Amino acid sequence: MVQVAVMGHGVVGSGVVEVLQNHRDSIAKRAKAELNIKYILDIRDFPDSPYADKFTKNFDDILNDDDIKVVAEVMGGVHPAYDFTKKLLLAGKSVVTSNKELVATKGAELIEIAKSNNVNYLFEASVGGGIPIIRPMVQCLAANDMIEVAGILNGTTNFILTKMIREHMAFDDALKMAQSLGYAERNPTADVEGHDACRKIAILASIAYGKHIYPNLVHTQGITKIALDDVAYAASWGGVIKLIGQVKRLDDGKLDITVEPMFISSESQLSSVDDVFNGILVRGDATGDVVFYGKGAGKLPTASAVVADMIDCAKHLKERKYLYWADGDESLVKPYNETEYPVYFRVSCEDKKAVADAALEIFPNSRILVRSDAPETELAFVTETMTVDMQNEKSAALEKAGAVILSKIRISDL
Amino acid sequence: MVQVAVMGHGVVGSGVVEVLQNHRDSIAKRAKAELNIKYILDIRDFPDSPYADKFTKNFDDILNDDDIKVVAEVMGGVHPAYDFTKKLLLAGKSVVTSNKELVATKGAELIEIAKSNNVNYLFEASVGGGIPIIRPMVQCLAANDMIEVAGILNGTTNFILTKMIREHMAFDDALKMAQSLGYAERNPTADVEGHDACRKIAILASIAYGKHIYPNLVHTQGITKIALDDVAYAASWGGVIKLIGQVKRLDDGKLDITVEPMFISSESQLSSVDDVFNGILVRGDATGDVVFYGKGAGKLPTASAVVADMIDCAKHLKERKYLYWADGDESLVKPYNETEYPVYFRVSCEDKKAVADAALEIFPNSRILVRSDAPETELAFVTETMTVDMQNEKSAALEKAGAVILSKIRISDL
Repeated sequence: MVQVAVMGHGVVGSGVVEVLQNHRDSIAKRAKAELNIKYILDIRDFPDSPYADKFTKNFDDILNDDDIKVVAEVMGGVHPAYDFTKKLLLAGKSVVTSNKELVATKGAELIEIAKSNNVNYLFEASVGGGIPIIRPMVQCLAANDMIEVAGILNGTTNFILTKMIREHMAFDDALKMAQSLGYAERNPTADVEGHDACRKIAILASIAYGKHIYPNLVHTQGITKIALDDVAYAASWGGVIKLIGQVKRLDDGKLDITVEPMFISSESQLSSVDDVFNGILVRGDATGDVVFYGKGAGKLPTASAVVADMIDCAKHLKERKYLYWADGDESLVKPYNETEYPVYFRVSCEDKKAVADAALEIFPNSRILVRSDAPETELAFVTETMTVDMQNEKSAALEKAGAVILSKIRISDL
Repeated sequence: MVQVAVMGHGVVGSGVVEVLQNHRDSIAKRAKAELNIKYILDIRDFPDSPYADKFTKNFDDILNDDDIKVVAEVMGGVHPAYDFTKKLLLAGKSVVTSNKELVATKGAELIEIAKSNNVNYLFEASVGGGIPIIRPMVQCLAANDMIEVAGILNGTTNFILTKMIREHMAFDDALKMAQSLGYAERNPTADVEGHDACRKIAILASIAYGKHIYPNLVHTQGITKIALDDVAYAASWGGVIKLIGQVKRLDDGKLDITVEPMFISSESQLSSVDDVFNGILVRGDATGDVVFYGKGAGKLPTASAVVADMIDCAKHLKERKYLYWADGDESLVKPYNETEYPVYFRVSCEDKKAVADAALEIFPNSRILVRSDAPETELAFVTETMTVDMQNEKSAALEKAGAVILSKIRISDL
């Protein structure tokens, strides 16, 4: 019997207790030992819970109990989760988590502490909810160099974009619908501004390239400025707009890592990842493209990933799983202004003919896009590949020629 | 340093040597030891190979060398691979393989021998080539009951069907193209008759349900009888025809396991898995649907999966990975005639009006399908859910009413 504790009894935490209970026998078989919940930590009271006798409000009960070998941290947020996790690892207990914010900001340090104390710190549930992605990247793809990792990592924004694409719903209406369905928080900033996706691509990049890529090094842009007009132009271009978290290694060894809306070709597997689903593409030099798809959030999917990590810890109480990245710094990342890609512009202008001529002179080899019902004063085009610096310089020239830039969206090479 | 051997120097075998060589350093880091190829077994001569000094034609060189701890069996076929693998496991060496035929027919026995000898027998590469599927199913989904596993498991037939769907190429022409591109063998039977997919779904079912499901228990039907007319009716129904390997547990505990062409709705993630790609859907009670997608075959993808298993064996020389199924028998599988599903019929008839009336009487609540350019003598419809026995009984009645049955294809619930 392995004694475990669950810290946090919110959506994921209560799901973890439920999965541990409902799958008791099969888990015991897999873990080669029964997993018994000794404590559930939460500041709230749950007098009617069937597990009422297990609740504690005192973290020290868990920390000081030598019987506890594995702890699930499903509290979320950096504080106090960071402090608790550190103390548990130092005390020789393995910790598993779904806390992407903590892993993305403190992962290198916590992994190092786990290593020094010969215990495990696992976080399969921190990216992609119930989709197995971290373990396959580490283990199955061990014999590959990672060329690129790119994904639709946030279900809320993908739901909103899907409504915009399929039902021509405006952003605000789609957001309201997501909120009423419980897919978006009342304060949706972390989702719609790309912060959640940023943490996730930071974690995937750290695994793929072995050095911690901190979220503040990731150029991050949300979807709040995407208009239905842009969605229509993406369709006429031959694709859809998706919020993509992406990292690839450039020829100079630096990483191009970003979260931003992108035009994705309909030919790409990611283009058909709709609604609240997530899809993650891993491009290895030997495997080619492998895509993982599923529900990226939700109580039971996420909880089952947390429990799978608990099983793994229980099986390896005295052995470390290979999951490691060293500390990193800004030298690993290509400054965003120096990265390069083709870009879509939508502009308004009084003299369309003159501005179109200027656009084709300033951005040679561009492709003009058309959509039905476009106003006479609107122009849209897709440029060649160029650096962001160059895009900005040329944008200024285009504005001088009489254009007002309404939208500017990256064209992906996926 | 861990000494390894590679048995077989065909497409996959030479890929394994290449991956081990090109990723020497990163593999050493992951495996916590260098992997050194001491022998390559092949009956052919490779005098110009840079590894010429490692070749042997004598299996006993590998078997009797106590230094060899891990062996990759990439010979294919049951004999002599079965005999060799058994001897190696009994001698305390771990074996990894891409040999789906061997795993599907002798897996339970070889896994049991590995277990008794405290070594590993791993076969990630046997299903889905470079797509990680077996390890995620075993580990990440450990906290789930498997409701269903279904997939496009054979790239050759998927290429042929894609050509039929997208370019209206006839089966024979698409097969010829697949052969000329090297996707299909000169004797394409194992692919087009579904035997390859059958072995793969047998392996996935054995993992999902813990008992060996032998390939001869799987109702298997290929794609040779699919006509372009059927492809057109599938489109009018709202989907595509794919060769699906599928297993699900029925309410009575028995397994509905089959390989056959099916109508798949365009809404399903599997419907957009095209060309030589594979896609595998795993439906867990907690995770919901998770889909794995990538190249299901090919030298380097498959080799990288073999090498990932070699790394795992090298890391666990004295410990067993959890990968086990017990022996099984026919009592596990629902007889095909008793399984039930809705079915599509295409029939020819002289008196269309009379046959259509008969069809709707014999198969109540059917949906008539239409396609452009259909001859006056053709009728197509999709029935309600019913057992295969019932389908056959009613088919006979329909024939009595003047219909000649041209096609009969399962409608999937994916």
